[in-house]
Amino acid sequence: MYFPSWLSQLYRGLSRPIRRTTQPIWGSLYRSLLQSSQRRIPEFSSFVVRTNTCGELRSSHLGQEVTLCGWIQYRRQNTFLVLRDFDGLVQVIIPQDESAASVKKILCEAPVESVVQVSGTVISRPAGQENPKMPTGEIEIKVKTAELLNACKKLPFEIKNFVKKTEALRLQYRYLDLRSFQMQYNLRLRSQMVMKMREYLCNLHGFVDIETPTLFKRTPGGAKEFLVPSREPGKFYSLPQSPQQFKQLLMVGGLDRYFQVARCYRDEGSRPDRQPEFTQIIDISDVFRNTEIGFLQDALSKPHGTVKAICIPEGAKYLKRKDIESIRNFAADHFNQEILPVFLNANRNWNSPVANFIMESQRLELIRLMETQEEDVVLLTAGEHNKACSLLGKLRLECADLLETRGVVLRDPTLFSFLWVVDFPLFLPKEENPRELESAHHPFTAPHPSDIHLLYTEPKKARSQHYDLVLNGNEIGGGSIRIHNAELQRYILATLLKEDVKMLSHLLQALDYGAPPHGGIALGLDRLICLVTGSPSIRDVIAFPKSFRGHDLMSNTPDSVPPEELKPYHIRVSKPTDSKAERAH
Amino acid sequence: MYFPSWLSQLYRGLSRPIRRTTQPIWGSLYRSLLQSSQRRIPEFSSFVVRTNTCGELRSSHLGQEVTLCGWIQYRRQNTFLVLRDFDGLVQVIIPQDESAASVKKILCEAPVESVVQVSGTVISRPAGQENPKMPTGEIEIKVKTAELLNACKKLPFEIKNFVKKTEALRLQYRYLDLRSFQMQYNLRLRSQMVMKMREYLCNLHGFVDIETPTLFKRTPGGAKEFLVPSREPGKFYSLPQSPQQFKQLLMVGGLDRYFQVARCYRDEGSRPDRQPEFTQIIDISDVFRNTEIGFLQDALSKPHGTVKAICIPEGAKYLKRKDIESIRNFAADHFNQEILPVFLNANRNWNSPVANFIMESQRLELIRLMETQEEDVVLLTAGEHNKACSLLGKLRLECADLLETRGVVLRDPTLFSFLWVVDFPLFLPKEENPRELESAHHPFTAPHPSDIHLLYTEPKKARSQHYDLVLNGNEIGGGSIRIHNAELQRYILATLLKEDVKMLSHLLQALDYGAPPHGGIALGLDRLICLVTGSPSIRDVIAFPKSFRGHDLMSNTPDSVPPEELKPYHIRVSKPTDSKAERAH
Repeated sequence: MYFPSWLSQLYRGLSRPIRRTTQPIWGSLYRSLLQSSQRRIPEFSSFVVRTNTCGELRSSHLGQEVTLCGWIQYRRQNTFLVLRDFDGLVQVIIPQDESAASVKKILCEAPVESVVQVSGTVISRPAGQENPKMPTGEIEIKVKTAELLNACKKLPFEIKNFVKKTEALRLQYRYLDLRSFQMQYNLRLRSQMVMKMREYLCNLHGFVDIETPTLFKRTPGGAKEFLVPSREPGKFYSLPQSPQQFKQLLMVGGLDRYFQVARCYRDEGSRPDRQPEFTQIIDISDVFRNTEIGFLQDALSKPHGTVKAICIPEGAKYLKRKDIESIRNFAADHFNQEILPVFLNANRNWNSPVANFIMESQRLELIRLMETQEEDVVLLTAGEHNKACSLLGKLRLECADLLETRGVVLRDPTLFSFLWVVDFPLFLPKEENPRELESAHHPFTAPHPSDIHLLYTEPKKARSQHYDLVLNGNEIGGGSIRIHNAELQRYILATLLKEDVKMLSHLLQALDYGAPPHGGIALGLDRLICLVTGSPSIRDVIAFPKSFRGHDLMSNTPDSVPPEELKPYHIRVSKPTDSKAERAH
Repeated sequence: MYFPSWLSQLYRGLSRPIRRTTQPIWGSLYRSLLQSSQRRIPEFSSFVVRTNTCGELRSSHLGQEVTLCGWIQYRRQNTFLVLRDFDGLVQVIIPQDESAASVKKILCEAPVESVVQVSGTVISRPAGQENPKMPTGEIEIKVKTAELLNACKKLPFEIKNFVKKTEALRLQYRYLDLRSFQMQYNLRLRSQMVMKMREYLCNLHGFVDIETPTLFKRTPGGAKEFLVPSREPGKFYSLPQSPQQFKQLLMVGGLDRYFQVARCYRDEGSRPDRQPEFTQIIDISDVFRNTEIGFLQDALSKPHGTVKAICIPEGAKYLKRKDIESIRNFAADHFNQEILPVFLNANRNWNSPVANFIMESQRLELIRLMETQEEDVVLLTAGEHNKACSLLGKLRLECADLLETRGVVLRDPTLFSFLWVVDFPLFLPKEENPRELESAHHPFTAPHPSDIHLLYTEPKKARSQHYDLVLNGNEIGGGSIRIHNAELQRYILATLLKEDVKMLSHLLQALDYGAPPHGGIALGLDRLICLVTGSPSIRDVIAFPKSFRGHDLMSNTPDSVPPEELKPYHIRVSKPTDSKAERAH
């Protein structure tokens, strides 16, 4: 029983100097927990039967008597098996002599993935049979006793990494899928990364880790919030999308430097992901202000019309005519847009279907703006601003994929490229009524200090103090400086956004009592860990994920509830008629 | 901007050798995040205007030019004010000369609890005016410039600790209450304690921190679980009372050494706390098997009848006749029980209303069993086992309170006394039908290894592998070794408890696929921190607690939801009629 030893370690940890927390508390807690552990310890509480983990054994353990517990990973010809625990694998030799018949029987008959406990001696593998790829590859265990702790039934799939299985099957038997090397690696790395973040924030910078409630009040426009009926007739809690109000209230409460690894609830149903795309491209509208090319003229004559281009370095060398043809078809099919390709040859001559319509001055200006080199390809498009940007962003990725299949090294798969996105607009026109405004981020984001005057004249032009962090093209986090002035917050909510401020009266009131200027950032942990581990889906970095439709396939959740259990919550199910049900799907 | 410096620290943290995680990941993450920070930093992102915190300034800072931000804690006669931030307090001298009239105006007119920013020089306090009780008591700030960052309206209560306010008012203005020294101390200590626990588990012992879902399936008998309607007609999620099923599934999944600081949801409505009381007392039934004392005879003749006693050391010296009288009245009024007091005087003579009825042999046996000393008082009671135990437990605490008011030091308020409670029964008779069984803890608890055979013969006598940890008389945690054998689990659920096993088929199936033997413990963090900080209520160690009735008084939660927002969830509110509503309350 190493209870007292962990207590000493705990105490050493607790005793590190911490400003203003009273030292005697730790000392006293430690001494008395130690005493309690030294009193009667019932015989069955010596749980730890293993002396070592499977993965830790090395040549330095040679000759030691060990007891190991683990899953049978693999067995060969009833002569040896490989035992696995969370720490790794070790080879176990099944005894063949008559006197150990019962041990042999246990180890030979237990199905793969059963849990066994073995005791024996660490010995060297015979010369030439070492396995340098295995950390425990120099040793093996000569078994003396064995016990079957739990047998395993026939598995629905093999746990080995190379066996392909559908994601639905993996989710249904999640507890088996978790045994795979990849899931073990992902979840353990996640745990370590979160721990390092905590150490950095708490230990180095004095941040305070505070849990905020998840049963709270609806936020305005919180249509995507799950509802939780209470025992009071007609009254509901809501599972908040984020602790955003609490973050601000903690700042008002003087809990400077707060952080939390928070659970956020978004009832997104089966709505497609509406993530906006950000692309860097170059606007060349001014070059073609007086062009003779028909579709460019057309585009520029419209209100949000623009001419945009991207340059594909060395495209002329690696892209074939038919590649460009398929790019033009893609643009026409998916975006209803025309694409003009321009090939630059060695002497920077232009090779394009419209080469004759581009004046020399336009050509030189284009070369200057696009910083083109020999053998580049330029792709031009024209049309409505957002559409043109989305198309070229897509094409940039498509061309990169094409060039990489031709052997050009463009993107380092081990590289992490971070990017900050700033200067977002504070407001956007409402989709359903473009004359009204809605917040681009959320209504608590502060305007850019230089743009405050615009709120009263041209609010659409005001920039916000909202920032996003992008990693390898994926948004992994974002945040903002918040409004700390109650008057400004009221003006934005009531006058500009026409929101009902009653639901937020507690927050507005809090701002009135000396709220300090404050801001923060939130990282999307699932997506970040996904990018770091190179996982194809966030479901690969979450222990028990829901399916795309919000189902838990392992336990069949959500599920029906008998009417008598709904009674205390004063709700009834109103089944939709068939036609309604169809519309809902 | 100290972004690059925190990155170096982060990198050093991440680079600590971690078994089996690939070093290049950390290096690459670090370098690229550093690059992103060195690109364009917009002018408004230099958020950190303060050079120091209020609480950190000492004599060693003398002569330094500093910029501080904080709340105005206190102002005296327009000559100085005390500024507060999360780190402490500092004294600020308001300039009196004509040239600084605007600075004086700002600092004299800003209401208390407004947020201000001041710049100035750290100077010594005049000789004799140092404040040794204040960490910054040797210095003060000679202000040159000042800015009002946010004004504070008239407060609903003063934030000073000695100002009494009702808890309802404190909860309504929680963000102000959080500014008090006690709440700051409690929440910061909590954050530090949780961090130390994490460091111990993750860094010293390789535990894996894993978040489990909070939107899950109802557990059998989970009547106290909140329901969450889904968008599928009649289908509900449930907010689990604890991650107990997931814990087990993680063990099956090979994620040995898992931990989580988990959110648990219990919809306890307004039901009173039904915590059982554990007391150590001494059973003296056998001494009085053949007694002539009427009420003892009575009690012992009944099935669960018992005679119990506690000894109050030095009680004869400190307790008065009228104390004993009030104890006997308390027992009669609250427990309908009779109490027999026995006073032991200096020569161990007995002084009791029933002294004549106690035989010499009984007297000697009692002295032996109770280990009584001169001047002790023994309190005897008789009756039904549970009732007698509860009463004496209560009286023991009452007498301790009494003795302490008489100046006897019994309990060290700074002491932490831990106690493990073991050998619980596995089953209890059902309250509504005593011939049926229910789990004493929960149906997944494993039986004591020596008692497994009793499950098939006398299940009521089987002990469980359930353990509770008690600190200063309060249960702060508990856990159990779980059943890892699917057959045993099925037998207990279906045959002994008559539960519908369909709802748990995923768990039973998981046990069939090689579940390792496993167990764990859960600590009630709120209560633990409560005891460590000496807080009267767990509401004092939670940032945003709910009231006794589950309300958030700050935001008025739970709240009504318009019917159109209920539609996507296929539920309707069924308001109870008046008479029903009355019954519900």
